[in-house]
Amino acid sequence: MSKSSSAASPATVLDADATDLFGLTAALVAVPSESHHEAELADLVEARLRERAPSLTIDRVEHNVVVRTQLGRDRRVLLGGHLDTVPAVDGNDVPSVKDDVLRGVGSADMKSGLAVLLRLAEELHAGFLRDGASRVHHDVTLVFYEAEEVRDQFNGLGIVMRAQPELLAADFAVLLEPTDGWVEAGCQGVLVAKAGFDGERAHAARPWMGSNAIHSASELLMKLAEHQTDTVDVDGLQFRESFQVVGIEGGVQGKHNVVPDRCTITVNRRFAPKYSPEEAEAQVRELLEGADDIEILQSQLAAPPNLTHPLVDEFVNGLSLDVRPKLGWTDVARFAAMGVPAVNFGPGDPEIAHTPGEFVTRASVEQCHDVLARFLGLSVGVA
Amino acid sequence: MSKSSSAASPATVLDADATDLFGLTAALVAVPSESHHEAELADLVEARLRERAPSLTIDRVEHNVVVRTQLGRDRRVLLGGHLDTVPAVDGNDVPSVKDDVLRGVGSADMKSGLAVLLRLAEELHAGFLRDGASRVHHDVTLVFYEAEEVRDQFNGLGIVMRAQPELLAADFAVLLEPTDGWVEAGCQGVLVAKAGFDGERAHAARPWMGSNAIHSASELLMKLAEHQTDTVDVDGLQFRESFQVVGIEGGVQGKHNVVPDRCTITVNRRFAPKYSPEEAEAQVRELLEGADDIEILQSQLAAPPNLTHPLVDEFVNGLSLDVRPKLGWTDVARFAAMGVPAVNFGPGDPEIAHTPGEFVTRASVEQCHDVLARFLGLSVGVA
Repeated sequence: MSKSSSAASPATVLDADATDLFGLTAALVAVPSESHHEAELADLVEARLRERAPSLTIDRVEHNVVVRTQLGRDRRVLLGGHLDTVPAVDGNDVPSVKDDVLRGVGSADMKSGLAVLLRLAEELHAGFLRDGASRVHHDVTLVFYEAEEVRDQFNGLGIVMRAQPELLAADFAVLLEPTDGWVEAGCQGVLVAKAGFDGERAHAARPWMGSNAIHSASELLMKLAEHQTDTVDVDGLQFRESFQVVGIEGGVQGKHNVVPDRCTITVNRRFAPKYSPEEAEAQVRELLEGADDIEILQSQLAAPPNLTHPLVDEFVNGLSLDVRPKLGWTDVARFAAMGVPAVNFGPGDPEIAHTPGEFVTRASVEQCHDVLARFLGLSVGVA
Repeated sequence: MSKSSSAASPATVLDADATDLFGLTAALVAVPSESHHEAELADLVEARLRERAPSLTIDRVEHNVVVRTQLGRDRRVLLGGHLDTVPAVDGNDVPSVKDDVLRGVGSADMKSGLAVLLRLAEELHAGFLRDGASRVHHDVTLVFYEAEEVRDQFNGLGIVMRAQPELLAADFAVLLEPTDGWVEAGCQGVLVAKAGFDGERAHAARPWMGSNAIHSASELLMKLAEHQTDTVDVDGLQFRESFQVVGIEGGVQGKHNVVPDRCTITVNRRFAPKYSPEEAEAQVRELLEGADDIEILQSQLAAPPNLTHPLVDEFVNGLSLDVRPKLGWTDVARFAAMGVPAVNFGPGDPEIAHTPGEFVTRASVEQCHDVLARFLGLSVGVA
């Protein structure tokens, strides 16, 4: 079971064997796709699907690829995965495989999920050729989309929803965010705000002639750094909120002899689905009291867990999956806003996503595939 | 005595009448000379001196102009003024004159001082033509130099000292920094240090997986902002020290969803001439305790007041001038380091230098000239 990264050059996205999900994941990691640079990967995914799953309907909207069965089932399940990754760091843009562990940016978040989606598409196609996909329970929509890791305005699901909303019609959605095989239900909301402090410039040798904006900000900064967050119960799930100062900037560029007249503090709050964005904003504004100005940079809805919804229940209890709350924001909130219940379920450890040491294991990718294949009615392990 | 800025276009540097020191100052302000952009002004000053004071020895080193008498006197007095200004702000790059107040960047610091130096040069030349300058007490060196407002490595006095040190030989130096007609004795030293805090990146929804460098810095920042500075007695003068945070930077550029792994705080300390740079550094390092790393960005010697030195005494007591300590760093420290006593004495209010509202009054410029002319033995008001 041991395999070194230097043993052989990896298969490409176009020729990797989908029954080797791990090799296919490595091939996907080898194609850089930092947010706003997904074109190459979108082209490769579309080309592979057109070659290997031609019985499915394939649509392309900008750098988003939507693949659908047309089986006439009562219900349609949507499975979604984003093509983009966060920027590489510490050289983790080169995938390396050792002892069934694949390391590299996007390995967990979420090229392993994309590999699972590609294999499911090929299995759906094979089932269609074999027996008209008679054993498939639901119609299926697979979405490969761009720009999930950046600001909402760029999100590929949003682009498709605005351009061709019918492509995303569904009764239940699963997003292949890294959850390590758990069902992560709901998601927390996001509120990003920037607090500004004004001062008055003066020469650093005569600071009493001015007013130091950084000094003015220091008391609030300390309060923010010390702020204790809550854990909030929703549907029996414990949502652990967070509150972080994610940026600070003050001083006159390149001048060390000037009392600074401006300092800004940027904070990021993750809030439980108990709260609306408006409530979260009011709470953050209260925390930032004392600033001269406050700007809301980002505000994203939380999604309720929806555990009692019949399709969520079929997925969670029908497959005996473990459930926990999703702490980060994911596109499940986008579906929740449209009234479509959605959960996160995918390979990889969410706690190492966005860290330099991001990795995914072979078992994690294969188990995710097997669960989704069972849910759809595909025979596990048989293409 | 009222004069509007719109009344007439100002005389240029080349044609302004030096007996109208205020008009000459306005002409100097009208030539932009932000640090690193002094070439045009240096050329104009040199051209004017070659035309109007040709009996003096004129040397040019890069954008620095040195003008000397060669009278064979026992002692030589150096008068120095820098050509550069801080960057313009709020439109103060356009000089405006009203009711004998001249506003504009550099009006006080120190184009009014340059106007005084230009007039003294012309008076020395006239005295030489008249009677061989028989009434002039000392040999005189006038220095117009670049890049005083920026980092030490660019300083024009430093450039001349390295290239042709004999040009700056003197027994006593006066720098025409704005002092509002006071003698500002000595100067405080400068210590600029950057303290760094390291953290570990993580997704903002799972901050407990990382460590927030901005949060780590917040306690020290608050302590620095609250730090009380001393007032230190040297030679009976009260040096009011200062300590300011002049810059702070933290966060991952453009990313609001990442727990930041780096935060830096830059501080500027002004220290009394009681302390050596090494002592000042030790004190600042103690204040910055708790940082992961400390880098010294700038360290400049303070200058003692030297009030008991015979030439300083002749200047201060011989002319019955008031004395106070210089709080900012000036090039007097550069002379002090060479064993040459030096004081600051010039027109304009030091408290408004480097502020958007910088200005100088007609009386301030004329009084400065009259004092220096008396010290040198020139007849006041008679060219």
